[in-house]
Amino acid sequence: MLGNIAVGQSGGPTAVINSSVAGVYSMAKKLGAPKVYGMMHGIEGFLQGKLVDLDGYLSDRVNFELLRRTPGSFLGTCRYKMPKIEENEEIYEKALRVMEENDVEVFFYVGGNDSMDTVKMLSDYAAARGKKQRFIGIPKTVDNDLPVTDHCPGYGSAAKYIASSMKEIIRDNESYGAKNPTVCIVEIMGRTAGWMAAAAALSKTEDCAGPDAIYLPERTFDIDGFLNHVDELAHKKHSVVIAVSEGIRVPDGRFVCEMGANPGYIDPFGHRMLSGCADTLVTMITQKLGCKSRSVEFSTLQRSATHIASAVDAEEAFRTGCRAVEAAVEGRTAEMVILKRISTSPYFCGTDLYDIHEIANEEKTVPDEWITADGRNLTDGYAEYARPLIMGEVQPFFVDGLPRHLVLKELEHF
Amino acid sequence: MLGNIAVGQSGGPTAVINSSVAGVYSMAKKLGAPKVYGMMHGIEGFLQGKLVDLDGYLSDRVNFELLRRTPGSFLGTCRYKMPKIEENEEIYEKALRVMEENDVEVFFYVGGNDSMDTVKMLSDYAAARGKKQRFIGIPKTVDNDLPVTDHCPGYGSAAKYIASSMKEIIRDNESYGAKNPTVCIVEIMGRTAGWMAAAAALSKTEDCAGPDAIYLPERTFDIDGFLNHVDELAHKKHSVVIAVSEGIRVPDGRFVCEMGANPGYIDPFGHRMLSGCADTLVTMITQKLGCKSRSVEFSTLQRSATHIASAVDAEEAFRTGCRAVEAAVEGRTAEMVILKRISTSPYFCGTDLYDIHEIANEEKTVPDEWITADGRNLTDGYAEYARPLIMGEVQPFFVDGLPRHLVLKELEHF
Repeated sequence: MLGNIAVGQSGGPTAVINSSVAGVYSMAKKLGAPKVYGMMHGIEGFLQGKLVDLDGYLSDRVNFELLRRTPGSFLGTCRYKMPKIEENEEIYEKALRVMEENDVEVFFYVGGNDSMDTVKMLSDYAAARGKKQRFIGIPKTVDNDLPVTDHCPGYGSAAKYIASSMKEIIRDNESYGAKNPTVCIVEIMGRTAGWMAAAAALSKTEDCAGPDAIYLPERTFDIDGFLNHVDELAHKKHSVVIAVSEGIRVPDGRFVCEMGANPGYIDPFGHRMLSGCADTLVTMITQKLGCKSRSVEFSTLQRSATHIASAVDAEEAFRTGCRAVEAAVEGRTAEMVILKRISTSPYFCGTDLYDIHEIANEEKTVPDEWITADGRNLTDGYAEYARPLIMGEVQPFFVDGLPRHLVLKELEHF
Repeated sequence: MLGNIAVGQSGGPTAVINSSVAGVYSMAKKLGAPKVYGMMHGIEGFLQGKLVDLDGYLSDRVNFELLRRTPGSFLGTCRYKMPKIEENEEIYEKALRVMEENDVEVFFYVGGNDSMDTVKMLSDYAAARGKKQRFIGIPKTVDNDLPVTDHCPGYGSAAKYIASSMKEIIRDNESYGAKNPTVCIVEIMGRTAGWMAAAAALSKTEDCAGPDAIYLPERTFDIDGFLNHVDELAHKKHSVVIAVSEGIRVPDGRFVCEMGANPGYIDPFGHRMLSGCADTLVTMITQKLGCKSRSVEFSTLQRSATHIASAVDAEEAFRTGCRAVEAAVEGRTAEMVILKRISTSPYFCGTDLYDIHEIANEEKTVPDEWITADGRNLTDGYAEYARPLIMGEVQPFFVDGLPRHLVLKELEHF
């Protein structure tokens, strides 16, 4: 039997992050939780006691289905770094107080590396103080860089968007080029792990040759080698399309985008906002090779294009939410739900739980054996791993020609 | 009774430009055309006699449906400017020779302003020489800037993509901002006509407030006014999302993007490739207001996202193709098919024909009365005009998780 629970979202949204909230709500209600609270803007709103009873939204079945079709973080998100306990114990006490005041037994947090750190810190604090409150992590990240789990909910939909959009861009680019080659550089998210850029490889299908090269941050970027390769391709083909990860770096450690015009914003975790890598390369191609070239940056859309979410991904996001609640009922804490692949063909994937201490702040990059020897493409091994994750579609609810979403009205007045 | 015909595509692709080719093929076959040829890369391939018998692709009904779901220009496109007759008469003679050699009676050209100029020049030449060959234009352009026609096939799908993506970006942006406001500047295509940026206004629906401002090239852009407005919004709201047309200019006539880092490529028609407007504004916001801000550029995807094409648009693109063939059977030449709106609610739109001389090289911008008095949004009048054009969906054929396309194999070896 389950008491009240609270669920929050943290970090960058994914196309299916709200499916995880739907999973938590659904299983919690099934297992008898009197109240399922949503934290507004994650731990940031939680510390201010800003909780919303989700029955007000999700007891309606149409709303429940709309939630699963809503991009962004329905509950609002934050990028809040927990202070060290010794620096500000009051924050920890406050979190526990909000839980006590609202009879919240379990705190569920849907997020990536930084958010799992929050789960770890809170659960460690509560355990050390002998408190009964429990804390469970639910993975989400388009970056797919969490360790231990086979993959992260959110990645499949990002990969589906990236591969679909790459096909559309390749089709567009192939239309041109009767006289002169057209070079298109596509910039894809990914700071240190190239998983998202790797997804461009999935556009290689019977009707599409895929991009001519994919540059990942797992390999040092050689500008001369890149320009030579583009030059070579442009002499052989009308249409050249290349995917690059925003996080590629030259040998001295600088990001390629730092060699361009915009220095980029630095977030509270000290991460530089990367952008302009493709623009920088296009300028080099135009100046050094004299080729017609243009850039495309998928930017926000790669994590928010819920209208083309993967059904497998949405279902797994939902199931990780359900599994987290089951784990709580089993009395677990300080754990994150992980996905465990049982077989690839046919694809079958289960859930399990894993010690949060082994996950928080760790990062998983694309394995060496999935990067081709020349360092500019992915092997079939990667495609075998990733293709099952983009299967199936979640049909949006179109109203007056546009996908309809569910909105948490309370966020307006936060 | 119809003889052989040829159809070509020219200028930038739209999400539904291939539906017009499908319309031409379909009606021509129905009316007994022995051969329907596709010109590879428009007039450029045509002048080299590069024709493809479309039966090889489109007699198969699955392929026919795939064509309607294929982005880019299936036949290949070009940006070819016809020389003046006195400069190079041989080009005109060559075009007529290719038609004679292949018994092509009618030349159909799917394109925008520049392409309609090609239709005009060729038909004028043929008429002046007493030739029987006929030339018909079929409108397409995401820019919606052709005169006379109520709207252009291609615009509705671009508008649907833009409005859907705006909703997704607004949802993403609203997720943040518990502590500090987040400003997002979205750059949308449109050199001198703001139709595409205007479509951002369609994201204003029951579940979405729409962007906070939309800046069109129809109004001179005042940088200080813009920064003041952003500052004001950022003090009132957590989430600020603003759409700008790539073609906005400051009072001295310079494009905003020219004030940034990338000067931009100049195409054969002398048009500067505009890009970087949003980046330029984001840099100003960061430097002058100190706000967290980021840019999104829809770039190629706004004309190639066939996976979210509008059904109304796809159907109208198809019908303009059909109507062009009927016009040819009626013996017409030097005309373009236009769309004539009969009623807005319920929406009903017919086709007609119009003298190509009144259309070629003319440009229609967003009417004054549809721009709000402060110059930074659209009136309800615009939404009434545009919303019917984004209605309905063309379900992609998903194969292995990705939209399947039809590919003209001959293009590879052009």
